[in-house]
Amino acid sequence: MQRIATSGLVLASLLFGISTVADARRPVSDVSRVYGVKLPQGYRDWKLISVAHEAGRNNDIRAILGNETAVKALREGKRPFPDGAILVRLAWRFESSSRNDSVFPAPQSFVAGEPVNVQVSVKDSKRYAASGGWGYGQFENGVANQDAALTKACFACHARLDALDSKADLVFTHYSQ
Amino acid sequence: MQRIATSGLVLASLLFGISTVADARRPVSDVSRVYGVKLPQGYRDWKLISVAHEAGRNNDIRAILGNETAVKALREGKRPFPDGAILVRLAWRFESSSRNDSVFPAPQSFVAGEPVNVQVSVKDSKRYAASGGWGYGQFENGVANQDAALTKACFACHARLDALDSKADLVFTHYSQ
Repeated sequence: MQRIATSGLVLASLLFGISTVADARRPVSDVSRVYGVKLPQGYRDWKLISVAHEAGRNNDIRAILGNETAVKALREGKRPFPDGAILVRLAWRFESSSRNDSVFPAPQSFVAGEPVNVQVSVKDSKRYAASGGWGYGQFENGVANQDAALTKACFACHARLDALDSKADLVFTHYSQ
Repeated sequence: MQRIATSGLVLASLLFGISTVADARRPVSDVSRVYGVKLPQGYRDWKLISVAHEAGRNNDIRAILGNETAVKALREGKRPFPDGAILVRLAWRFESSSRNDSVFPAPQSFVAGEPVNVQVSVKDSKRYAASGGWGYGQFENGVANQDAALTKACFACHARLDALDSKADLVFTHYSQ
């Protein structure tokens, strides 16, 4: 069945162009549900926007990186973000470091452990008009989470920020100098 | 007095070359005590190595960035770091975010507040042979801290790591995927 489906995609690619060939080779799980967001190439090398710690159930430490369009908008205080802005939030387990604590004067050091997930927000005011101009995706080990309810929850949560801070353009993070 | 000292430096620059003119214009506080380390140009745009939280007296949340040489060595697990590697640790106040907490399901969110300081480690095995090949500097608001004892404490603390983990080349941070 998988083979037939793939063959169908390859046939479609022959009919509709080379870009479809590339898509046929890419597993469906590269793309988030609902929004069709992909993990941007080279995102791990993007510029740092800020860092944060989520306690409780999350128990992670995180970094928020952005592409050039996003970082420029943040630095210039430009809102709403222009189309093409992409924010990537990387989270790792929040772990006490006994190694560092044995050197430091007191038990105090918490570091990034194993990766938890990567969340991506893509600004496209037309494509994502129904979700405030943002498309979302969550990735674990480079694979898009295929839980549609989880993916929809991204916007539901970001939308709650709008009532509180309508100038934030649904983005929690501030740029840290 | 300042004017006389500056004139002396300008005179020295005329005698010893153009690079000294640039140095004469640069306030002494651009350079760390003991090691003569400067805040590297463009460091804020460098690639992210990892993140951490120091509780207790520090009470900060931090990001460690690196230049190309440092990041390459970390990704390849190369130790000791090659000469030219530079690590920059940016720390911000660790602050509870009531804004985020009012959106999230529970009080859990801690973010980066005001900048605390920036610490720089520069690898130069010849120049800094007496301190394990590393030169250090701490900067507040872009200005080098002029407390020699504080600057010396950088190496004293990093050196303690060596007894525990001699393969770390005096660097606490691991690269976070």
